[in-house]
Amino acid sequence: MNPAAPTPLGHCRWAIAEGYIPPTSSDPDDPRLVSHEAACLLNCNSEEAHVSLHIYFKDREPAGPFRVTVPARRTLHLRFNDLSDPESIPRDTPYASVIESDVPIVVQHTRLDSRQAALALMSTIAYAGDAH
Amino acid sequence: MNPAAPTPLGHCRWAIAEGYIPPTSSDPDDPRLVSHEAACLLNCNSEEAHVSLHIYFKDREPAGPFRVTVPARRTLHLRFNDLSDPESIPRDTPYASVIESDVPIVVQHTRLDSRQAALALMSTIAYAGDAH
Amino acid sequence: MNPAAPTPLGHCRWAIAEGYIPPTSSDPDDPRLVSHEAACLLNCNSEEAHVSLHIYFKDREPAGPFRVTVPARRTLHLRFNDLSDPESIPRDTPYASVIESDVPIVVQHTRLDSRQAALALMSTIAYAGDAH
Amino acid sequence: MNPAAPTPLGHCRWAIAEGYIPPTSSDPDDPRLVSHEAACLLNCNSEEAHVSLHIYFKDREPAGPFRVTVPARRTLHLRFNDLSDPESIPRDTPYASVIESDVPIVVQHTRLDSRQAALALMSTIAYAGDAH
Repeated sequence: MNPAAPTPLGHCRWAIAEGYIPPTSSDPDDPRLVSHEAACLLNCNSEEAHVSLHIYFKDREPAGPFRVTVPARRTLHLRFNDLSDPESIPRDTPYASVIESDVPIVVQHTRLDSRQAALALMSTIAYAGDAH
Repeated sequence: MNPAAPTPLGHCRWAIAEGYIPPTSSDPDDPRLVSHEAACLLNCNSEEAHVSLHIYFKDREPAGPFRVTVPARRTLHLRFNDLSDPESIPRDTPYASVIESDVPIVVQHTRLDSRQAALALMSTIAYAGDAH
Repeated sequence: MNPAAPTPLGHCRWAIAEGYIPPTSSDPDDPRLVSHEAACLLNCNSEEAHVSLHIYFKDREPAGPFRVTVPARRTLHLRFNDLSDPESIPRDTPYASVIESDVPIVVQHTRLDSRQAALALMSTIAYAGDAH
Repeated sequence: MNPAAPTPLGHCRWAIAEGYIPPTSSDPDDPRLVSHEAACLLNCNSEEAHVSLHIYFKDREPAGPFRVTVPARRTLHLRFNDLSDPESIPRDTPYASVIESDVPIVVQHTRLDSRQAALALMSTIAYAGDAH
């Protein structure tokens, strides 16, 4: 198969300055509707992307690295809720994240907030640092 | 008529790392309120834009190319829900997309989620790759 | 007074590929809660910005130019709903916009959708074209 | 500890053209659910960031500078609601902001609107000016 992107698409370093996992959900039994934050990672390359994340806080040293692999020509919608190694992300706590990859990727940030019966959504392209 | 953009405006390659078509809608009979995802394409050029999309998934090879044409000086708000050739986009499944055009265009990503009675919206400028 | 931005901040040409004014509002008598779309324009310069907008559609030639002035060191949150010269923007109709200024400005796009009792919001930085 | 970002990540000047603090909240006693706007600031450097903000309005001169410090390797989710020196930000009034730092930072803009029982969210990366 001839994938869509013949030349690298993306950057190797990204940042998301906003981060907050709501502490509650209106329907905690449906994983699709659990309050969550995600970093959507897109790897258009023909080789896998080795990605590391560091999480920044208001009043403690950063946590990480958290490591995930995105296979070649795949997307991974990584929920911050699911991170557990080397530690889990505290709920109801502001944070930020820096995402680094050994090959260019594209990163988008999304939150689903279902603290109330009516869910709310937000999404933005992440900040693309220099592709150094 | 003298269109607004005398020199090219946009990029030839875009990516949207987030993608998810909610499986249900509160009012499936009103197409305006059906849960959907859209790639809003703006072609300011005096010639038509030939656009191809590839859809990336978590655990299978990319789908596509999907082909659409945006006439000169027109915008097309393309719903991923409506794609059918060479295949349709599965609901309730994370995906990502790469959008390529033979002339510069501008791309914005929007989701309307009406799984619940109170709809939710999100939107972001897409990631603009090099205009190669 | 010494304003915040000693050197130009922004671009002279912007695009918003998404555009849609919902046809109804849950409380049409409160202008703050009327369904609307806005282009938030920020002019940090010490001279006024002369801004022109062109609106693009799916199946007709672009409308415009619409002209607004943003005074020096001011912001204007321009509602597309309020445009009337040379024509008004149709409701319930997809559109896109190109915004050009004679001095650099910053543009952000926001929609408030109050078709239902529970309002929904979305916002994104607009696409910044070359500052030609 | 070896922080995530060995070289500077971010820009020294940012702008948010949208700004509006809703005048009411459905549950004003829960600070998490009070209608608010935030500028999320991420400082990945090994030195603290001295940040100044100027707020722009429709019909008066800019306010500021407001000054905050973001420690090394920390994030600060600054609520515009909390600014008080040299003045507070008026509610129910459109504004915009320019954010300047002596070291590169990353800025993201978020609003939580809880005027109604069902909250609404929006977020976007801010506009990154030249890192001069």
